[in-house]
Amino acid sequence: MAVKRRGRRPGPSGTREAIAQAARRQFSELGYDRATIRSVAGEAGVDPALVVHYYGSKQRLFLAAIELPFEVSELVERLESGPREQVGERVARFALEVLENPDARARWTGMIRAAASDPDAADILREVLTRRIFEPLAEALGSEDARLRANLASSQMVGLVMARYIIAVEPLASAVAETITSAIAPTLQRYLVGAL
Amino acid sequence: MAVKRRGRRPGPSGTREAIAQAARRQFSELGYDRATIRSVAGEAGVDPALVVHYYGSKQRLFLAAIELPFEVSELVERLESGPREQVGERVARFALEVLENPDARARWTGMIRAAASDPDAADILREVLTRRIFEPLAEALGSEDARLRANLASSQMVGLVMARYIIAVEPLASAVAETITSAIAPTLQRYLVGAL
Repeated sequence: MAVKRRGRRPGPSGTREAIAQAARRQFSELGYDRATIRSVAGEAGVDPALVVHYYGSKQRLFLAAIELPFEVSELVERLESGPREQVGERVARFALEVLENPDARARWTGMIRAAASDPDAADILREVLTRRIFEPLAEALGSEDARLRANLASSQMVGLVMARYIIAVEPLASAVAETITSAIAPTLQRYLVGAL
Repeated sequence: MAVKRRGRRPGPSGTREAIAQAARRQFSELGYDRATIRSVAGEAGVDPALVVHYYGSKQRLFLAAIELPFEVSELVERLESGPREQVGERVARFALEVLENPDARARWTGMIRAAASDPDAADILREVLTRRIFEPLAEALGSEDARLRANLASSQMVGLVMARYIIAVEPLASAVAETITSAIAPTLQRYLVGAL
């Protein structure tokens, strides 16, 4: 591991981050079920007790591992700003930018894989994607039925991640991001502010 | 089990069906990973060797468990027939009819849960949903890019199953079927025959 190669004992924040990195990789590749505090500790080269000390529980470790690399309130503001008739395109473009980044993609595929089989992970996905991103956005846009709209937009995004990155169905899996953006933007547009 | 309550030894087809039922329940509730030939045999009250005798492998048992309750070629014909501008609505209506039936819903949620964590199960979902249903439909409708269109329609359907039945996000999870049908019909319409 990088931490060891630097030839000095990592400080607490290095260890904490090494644990989070190991957790991110394991949740993404093994899924929520099969990744354990013990297996994450093993990969990070620390005692399981230290993982518990830093993160408390597997659910909290998972939340830390998938921590969003942006401030949610700023994101909502950024997506809302601009012509209302292009909000679907802004969301689609931003989502594809995030998902084309390998680290971010690993977080989202890990979260969605986990949510498919584990109720705790499903709680987290609901909270992050629907309540913290799409619901505030639909509300900021002044749409009626903001919660249902947020759910529908989430359903398309979760389905896209499943189809393109997890099930990897072709030609969707190999299509350039621009093709996907154009295809889903009108769907998101209608779900967020159009006629249901 | 019902088979035992009838007070006679089940014939081979009764046993076979008891195994398929146990498999359906276990794949749906435990996921593809955690359900095993042994655990299915245990629930069906038979020897694991008999499960292997009838089904060969876990992957084939899974395929049998999720066997579609309709003839796919007839389905495609039925969905294609009728006004072209209403094909999205026909697909959405049929899909919701299927998914509101508890047995059929268990098959689809089981298949999607499994596909999220297991590449073999992902192969099966790709094959069933995209290649056997949406691709022939998009081709029958004479759309260009039939395969990409089939992928996109699949992405919305998989996302809907995840959001409504697996992640169970509200108010989508409790909405009446008609609300969902109206919301997703225009999406399917555009993916299948509209402008991408």
